[in-house]
Amino acid sequence: MYEVEMKVRADHGRVRDALRELGASARGAITQRDTYYDAPTRDFAETDEALRVRREERGGTERARLTYKGPLIGETSKTREEYETDLGDGDAAAAILDSLGFVPVETVEKVRERFSLAEYAVTLDSVAGVGEFVEVETEASEGDVDAAREGVARTVESLGLDPDEEIRVSYLELLLERDRDRP
Amino acid sequence: MYEVEMKVRADHGRVRDALRELGASARGAITQRDTYYDAPTRDFAETDEALRVRREERGGTERARLTYKGPLIGETSKTREEYETDLGDGDAAAAILDSLGFVPVETVEKVRERFSLAEYAVTLDSVAGVGEFVEVETEASEGDVDAAREGVARTVESLGLDPDEEIRVSYLELLLERDRDRP
Repeated sequence: MYEVEMKVRADHGRVRDALRELGASARGAITQRDTYYDAPTRDFAETDEALRVRREERGGTERARLTYKGPLIGETSKTREEYETDLGDGDAAAAILDSLGFVPVETVEKVRERFSLAEYAVTLDSVAGVGEFVEVETEASEGDVDAAREGVARTVESLGLDPDEEIRVSYLELLLERDRDRP
Repeated sequence: MYEVEMKVRADHGRVRDALRELGASARGAITQRDTYYDAPTRDFAETDEALRVRREERGGTERARLTYKGPLIGETSKTREEYETDLGDGDAAAAILDSLGFVPVETVEKVRERFSLAEYAVTLDSVAGVGEFVEVETEASEGDVDAAREGVARTVESLGLDPDEEIRVSYLELLLERDRDRP
């Protein structure tokens, strides 16, 4: 299965109204605090790798996860090696990375409000320091990716948003851009 | 509280007989597989650090843990910085360390058979490639460490073993020594 998703900037107040009118179901909120690290041996921005400690709060339950994403495999594919494990203690894991010489470069904090709308997952992301976004996502098998992408675009439109304004970079990249543009 | 412990080489058959005669209670067995890593940036044997992924099996339940031990703090204390977190997926954590350039240097595999004997924990360790050991351990507050140490020594004697044969190095060091001594 493929994840087909589209992300645009959006005023959440209006999108919430549209979701209500369309009869979407609320699926609860998640708070995520993602700390991205740089390695003592190499610059992950250059090597196209990422190392992240995620601390998540969902319905009163906290969990933490460690994720490594390798560089893109090949020129055309969007495939990466990715390894992920839950952590019993996110702070201890951060202290271990710190002791090993890894440096936290950026922390992305967001509240994700989730809704279901037919076969689409609609997420209202409030990202600290970057703004408000809406992400529409669905799953598709290999032959259905194009059709799924059209459906995602139509759903974006039904929320009063413009699929042509799709943002293809990550929140981390938006945050790093903002920091670069600062005087 | 301080952990006061003593470890000696021992034939487990005889120690089991002694434990039975003394009325010790069996506390079940644990299998531990500890993989120690070296860093891409520094030689942990030289810097007196350790990074370990432990995979443990206890009564049918598997768990994994990541531990970092820093160098000794000061000349006289036996204190180290230590950070530890449970891992949801030990293999994923190992793959992440591997991707980050950490190299597994040694794996210590042991079966630990645990017994209680009065206020002492007696553990029969079978360490792959190194042999059979018995560890006697108890807890003491700061003022009682000497008395606890005497009690531990007496317990070692009661098992038919000699406290003067105490082994102060870790199983990892014994395993590394063995590898160095090989032709």
